[in-house]
Amino acid sequence: MTEAAPRPVVTAFDWVPEFARGLVRDLRIRWALEEIGREYDSELFSARAPRPDSYLSWQPFGQVPAFADGDLKLFETGAILLYLGEQDERLLPPDGPARWAAISWLFAAFSSVEGYVQRITSYDLFHKDKPWQPEAREASLGICKDKLKRVADALEGKDWLAGQFSIADIAMITVLNNLRHTDLVAEYPTLAEYKARGETRPAYKRALDAQYADFTPEPA
Amino acid sequence: MTEAAPRPVVTAFDWVPEFARGLVRDLRIRWALEEIGREYDSELFSARAPRPDSYLSWQPFGQVPAFADGDLKLFETGAILLYLGEQDERLLPPDGPARWAAISWLFAAFSSVEGYVQRITSYDLFHKDKPWQPEAREASLGICKDKLKRVADALEGKDWLAGQFSIADIAMITVLNNLRHTDLVAEYPTLAEYKARGETRPAYKRALDAQYADFTPEPA
Repeated sequence: MTEAAPRPVVTAFDWVPEFARGLVRDLRIRWALEEIGREYDSELFSARAPRPDSYLSWQPFGQVPAFADGDLKLFETGAILLYLGEQDERLLPPDGPARWAAISWLFAAFSSVEGYVQRITSYDLFHKDKPWQPEAREASLGICKDKLKRVADALEGKDWLAGQFSIADIAMITVLNNLRHTDLVAEYPTLAEYKARGETRPAYKRALDAQYADFTPEPA
Repeated sequence: MTEAAPRPVVTAFDWVPEFARGLVRDLRIRWALEEIGREYDSELFSARAPRPDSYLSWQPFGQVPAFADGDLKLFETGAILLYLGEQDERLLPPDGPARWAAISWLFAAFSSVEGYVQRITSYDLFHKDKPWQPEAREASLGICKDKLKRVADALEGKDWLAGQFSIADIAMITVLNNLRHTDLVAEYPTLAEYKARGETRPAYKRALDAQYADFTPEPA
């Protein structure tokens, strides 16, 4: 008998408000793990209280997800996705131009798209009633749409960003999902089809179910 | 005689306004290349005109830098830094926890810090005179400061983010430099010292000189 590999650990929240369910970033790691059929455990924190100080030596920003695989601890969704990708070529081609195309798009999801998406969601979800919100949002909308259009253009005639399905698609599709309260993705049919293509994967659905299953009932 | 490795190519701009000099992201790649003493060529584009359509198949967002090493083309600063890091352990430890600490911080610079820094710089540089700017900026300031404090806390007692100097420091220090028009970094002495520590490295100075040397005189 071979000894089973230890189950990795993903940190997540034990409850978030309705608007955030399905958007918390541990979903990205759960999705990758489900794609390769690797079982894992979740370690849950309260989103309603500061993370314990001891957590900061693992995740310096106090956010989720962080990740542990045996003694190895890492943080940042992108780093964790890369780590998993290097272990299984269903998530990341092992070398050459295909690997670097996927890694380029992985960074693009976070560096060239997510920040602009987050501005819109921040205005919509956290500053909706502020008198300055409409103008500030409008000033950010153009660049967000430009980023979406660039991704849509790059996807023209392709199922996935970098040839085969990869960690880049896990990153980009979950970034796009932060706009689910708007019609922005729908303005680019190529992008909407791409997002739907990812979200119909059985591994995505399993990951989503697992995130929801970790939420305790809303406190009274 | 061994054949010399081909010189890699970094794309950059042939001119930017004063406020952007030293901040254009090709600096990050130049810095990494200077750290390992690898000669390179720059391929310049005009920042005052859209990038040619042909460039979009290399850099889908039309931004700089993109990077080519022989036949291999990649894009996104983070991906290019990782690529260079994998070639030289002066930029990235080759394996184990040290490698993953540096990669975690590399992603952190872009995903957990840069987006919040960019909101402040966007308000300050592009929306300074808008009537809604003061309130919108104020609403973004708290989270930006929180991110800076977290990085400062993580640097306590350390010279660099992940043990040895690495691509994570190139990323973080150049991200922080986007706040050079403010006193925000100075509010965290650990962070200010860290930034100065990076910017006194000879490779940083050579990279900066090279970026400036590529700028043509301002048009009449």
